[in-house]
Amino acid sequence: MTPEFSSKSLYDDLVKFGHIIPVGVPGIFGRGAIFEDILTRFEAAVGRLAASDHATKVHFPPCINRQILQKSLYIDSFPQLSGTVFSFTGNDAAHRELSSRLKDDKPWGDLQTMTDCCLTPAACYPVYPTFTGTLPTDGALVDVQNWVFRHEPSDEPTRMQAFRVHEYVRLGTTDVVVAWRDLWLQRGLDILLSLGLAVKAEVATDPFFGRGGRMLAANQREQKLKFEVVCPVISAEKPTALCSFNYHQDKFGTIFNIKTSTGETADTACLGFGLERIVMALLKTHGMDPGSWPKPVREVLWT
Amino acid sequence: MTPEFSSKSLYDDLVKFGHIIPVGVPGIFGRGAIFEDILTRFEAAVGRLAASDHATKVHFPPCINRQILQKSLYIDSFPQLSGTVFSFTGNDAAHRELSSRLKDDKPWGDLQTMTDCCLTPAACYPVYPTFTGTLPTDGALVDVQNWVFRHEPSDEPTRMQAFRVHEYVRLGTTDVVVAWRDLWLQRGLDILLSLGLAVKAEVATDPFFGRGGRMLAANQREQKLKFEVVCPVISAEKPTALCSFNYHQDKFGTIFNIKTSTGETADTACLGFGLERIVMALLKTHGMDPGSWPKPVREVLWT
Repeated sequence: MTPEFSSKSLYDDLVKFGHIIPVGVPGIFGRGAIFEDILTRFEAAVGRLAASDHATKVHFPPCINRQILQKSLYIDSFPQLSGTVFSFTGNDAAHRELSSRLKDDKPWGDLQTMTDCCLTPAACYPVYPTFTGTLPTDGALVDVQNWVFRHEPSDEPTRMQAFRVHEYVRLGTTDVVVAWRDLWLQRGLDILLSLGLAVKAEVATDPFFGRGGRMLAANQREQKLKFEVVCPVISAEKPTALCSFNYHQDKFGTIFNIKTSTGETADTACLGFGLERIVMALLKTHGMDPGSWPKPVREVLWT
Repeated sequence: MTPEFSSKSLYDDLVKFGHIIPVGVPGIFGRGAIFEDILTRFEAAVGRLAASDHATKVHFPPCINRQILQKSLYIDSFPQLSGTVFSFTGNDAAHRELSSRLKDDKPWGDLQTMTDCCLTPAACYPVYPTFTGTLPTDGALVDVQNWVFRHEPSDEPTRMQAFRVHEYVRLGTTDVVVAWRDLWLQRGLDILLSLGLAVKAEVATDPFFGRGGRMLAANQREQKLKFEVVCPVISAEKPTALCSFNYHQDKFGTIFNIKTSTGETADTACLGFGLERIVMALLKTHGMDPGSWPKPVREVLWT
């Protein structure tokens, strides 16, 4: 039997079974209890896989210091995806104007002021500046899970504006960082294959903005700096990235002045599991009721 | 021994012990592994307390449909706290202008456009519109944990811009909703007292904006629509709210057209545990190392 793929029918099924709860904005929705349970169990399975690595666990809010995204060139490279937080800083008179516009359903965005916060665009971004200075001899390894934001409203259920990514981040010498990335590329494939997902790894690129961005993407592809583990979820021809591996060379080491113990600029790499996408891939592949999933899949998650 | 309170010394201790990780914006910081472990254990303890209620569990992203905050008058009542999400929707030419301004460290907020998303201001806000229509005979009960945002940058560690709130939300007839609120006011006190915290309940008000807002707050206080369970954390005289109970009467029922099974406009109430504040209250009261906390406190959390 050939599985059939359709963005709309997956969305409708997820809603029908209470796995996602529409809120009226594309790419933003609530998650039901079973959806959350699968997500939590997948994270626990990844945690067991990574336990012997003894990564330092941290957790950051969905907001990030705007200066970090300016300094790291995120805003410049991905302005179309970034979310900046604005708020009202006016007086009573300005508030009367705001009230009046809200009442009359008139635009009121110009009454808002940019704050010092952006929405976190990737789970690893808050990590790098915390390592400004010299790393220990064996570098550093961080385990982080955050909500991230991408401004790309879409009815396609796997293309969300807000979602959670569980990342591991490695900082150190080139040899250490590249070997670690390769180890996790295999681990990522292994754990997703053990869950019965039809995944494969492929070279990928980031969605850099505009004409200039196409050159950055071509360079990234040529140097094989980004890999993704992809799986058919809403399309057989265009599989969905479930897991993403980025080798940044010394980009963040240079920007945030991170040094190895021997004084070289540190390399960094990260890998992220797109948690909601993995849950959706499981529900699409094995059915909307996890109680009826194949026994080997259940054994990985319900240990 | 009289405990000493100081916002600065609590912040410094939290940083020193790795419980919070500064990121350069007041009220935004990372959370360390022990901090997260305490937070998760507290949530589990609340979950045990509430297990027999069989609340429907849902989880929402840190972003919310902007229309919901306009319709519910949140933006009008608390514009100074609200966060609206802006993004870049320009072309290549506009991007060149953005790049140039970023490079020269010039203001670039006017190159951003308001999106359909706001930051979720309270964990319960996304819940109400999902109940538009008629409730079951016994109303509805929801268990929700979300990241929320309040634009009030402060060096005071308990006054965060981004934090998590675990809320329960009750929808139904007046009698049912008020009795439920009273039950939880006692439960909230009981669980925090069992953790050795010097808490008490008091009537409170929301921080409505401006001169008009002061009348709304006075009305709220007079009708005892808001209670807080407070605890000395950074000050003995001005204790910190750890838990907040709001009875909305038929406000959300009217706005979102929520009806009881007999066709009346439904009442709603919610209570929220401020998770980070509770962890900070525990660390302040019992010490920065949970391994040395009093045995009865550990027994509640490390069951």
